Amino acid sequence: MKLITFKQAGVSRVGAIVNEEVIDLHASYKALLKSEGKIRAEQIAEAFVPSEMTGFLQGGKESLELARKAIDFALTIKEDDGYKLVYPYEDVKVEAPVPKPGKIFAVGHNYKEHILEMGRELPSNPVVFAKFANTLVGPQDDIPFHPVSEQLDYEAEFAFVIGKRAKNVSEEDALDYVAGYAVANDVTYRDIQRRTLQWLQGKTVDGSLPMGPWMVTADEIKDPQTLEMVLTVNGEERQRTNTANQVFTVKHLVSFLSNLATLEPGDIVITGTPGGVIQAMEPQVWLKDGDVVRVEIDQVGVLENTVRNVKGE
Amino acid sequence: MKLITFKQAGVSRVGAIVNEEVIDLHASYKALLKSEGKIRAEQIAEAFVPSEMTGFLQGGKESLELARKAIDFALTIKEDDGYKLVYPYEDVKVEAPVPKPGKIFAVGHNYKEHILEMGRELPSNPVVFAKFANTLVGPQDDIPFHPVSEQLDYEAEFAFVIGKRAKNVSEEDALDYVAGYAVANDVTYRDIQRRTLQWLQGKTVDGSLPMGPWMVTADEIKDPQTLEMVLTVNGEERQRTNTANQVFTVKHLVSFLSNLATLEPGDIVITGTPGGVIQAMEPQVWLKDGDVVRVEIDQVGVLENTVRNVKGE
Repeated sequence: MKLITFKQAGVSRVGAIVNEEVIDLHASYKALLKSEGKIRAEQIAEAFVPSEMTGFLQGGKESLELARKAIDFALTIKEDDGYKLVYPYEDVKVEAPVPKPGKIFAVGHNYKEHILEMGRELPSNPVVFAKFANTLVGPQDDIPFHPVSEQLDYEAEFAFVIGKRAKNVSEEDALDYVAGYAVANDVTYRDIQRRTLQWLQGKTVDGSLPMGPWMVTADEIKDPQTLEMVLTVNGEERQRTNTANQVFTVKHLVSFLSNLATLEPGDIVITGTPGGVIQAMEPQVWLKDGDVVRVEIDQVGVLENTVRNVKGE
Repeated sequence: MKLITFKQAGVSRVGAIVNEEVIDLHASYKALLKSEGKIRAEQIAEAFVPSEMTGFLQGGKESLELARKAIDFALTIKEDDGYKLVYPYEDVKVEAPVPKPGKIFAVGHNYKEHILEMGRELPSNPVVFAKFANTLVGPQDDIPFHPVSEQLDYEAEFAFVIGKRAKNVSEEDALDYVAGYAVANDVTYRDIQRRTLQWLQGKTVDGSLPMGPWMVTADEIKDPQTLEMVLTVNGEERQRTNTANQVFTVKHLVSFLSNLATLEPGDIVITGTPGGVIQAMEPQVWLKDGDVVRVEIDQVGVLENTVRNVKGE
């Protein structure tokens, strides 16, 4: 299933995409419950299929199953008491799939070919840093270029989202804790990242983590370590790799991180970027207003955003 | 005012401490509204004086003023319809003042005397790293020592909490955006912190940020750069400094961080630790089960926690 967070008439909701249409999951499940004669349909729907993604993910596989039933129902009746359950994709504003995660872990130096070509040894532990939720923007948003730096760079990233509370999880069980996968772009202000030893300040600028357009649920990706990823700027290819080249796999990262911190539903991990960032180019032609950055990951999706200068700050 | 988050009968609430007693702010404001004949007392109280700290801080000075009225009322009537508004301090479980902040920024290398004695130059920009909310524990909790490392260290820290959304704030206006101050201990797993260049993994282990016992509202601290801070382990002094020695002051940090990321009510900044950590001792005698770590900051409070081995992980 392709899960999204979308806004319609100013209200944020969880949706699923089926054949270019968006199903409002909470409203559809409520309509299904009403059709079954449940007087407390709204309250039950809020408990099991809420309209906010983190809450929905907390419901785990049970909520996902109920959502599937709701989708089937919505596609037959389309609306409930005059309230639309299904929207054309073009009519809604799509946001980042999980707009308010509790944690965003980011992994550095995670693609073998790039590390080896730089003449470095493969690391024995993942390099992990943070971004905060203020960085998230959606697939229809611009990448805001704040006038705090001139060195704006991209990083194509394969992201996963936690679906179940995870503490001390083994690699063997790890994929059970993944709700789904998404495309992300770890936009980075390079000079700010490098001006101290800790990268956070160049990594957590507002709007510096475009993500989406959707999260593909884990059942649809048979093996997360086989996916081709390509990034282009204005159509020109800059980064290309395959998740097969990752030093630390999704299951390793779930296990590794869950042995340090309890992971919660909705937590996001972006798993690193390969070679080809502007930082490593000669000359360095940084991103500028109007540049279109497109990241495509096989079986997951395409995320395309335009860089826009932020004025008046 | 001393603001706390406390649990009573299994429910988490916002409280104020007055003369060793804890006032339940939401319940007291609701009781006040009822006494004024407001039928929608519960809904109005939830809007203006909610029982969760981040929501309460979002209400800003307006909510703080209403809370003050609620306190006066509660101290006269003590209970409402058989529901207690005031508890003896010993009867409640006190948690971290802001249990679910959106962001926790931590500052490294921020005390002049320590940097200079190490023969380093004063930095021109703050070193900033992250902790996530899974690290927060309260003043009555133990410091869990997870068996992922043997190198457990303390860091006495002066913390502040954001009270108003802040973006591109000037130093001149910065203190208007601070809701209050608290004592914190940035517990660190040193070998995990150092095994990669990015510190996050040794900094965001579950339970590694004791904070409290309360947040002192900003109006009670005339100058946050004049406060003596002392850390002891089992009564032995290990760290002592004064916030006058900070390279980057509270107002500088608010301004600096708000120029990168939008700060939200409830966001926490821990402002760095002085010399005297175990990492720098010879020999390094790491914290162990049963050690009592106490941090006292003048005008702010005393935070004391005991280290406890976590078994069975």
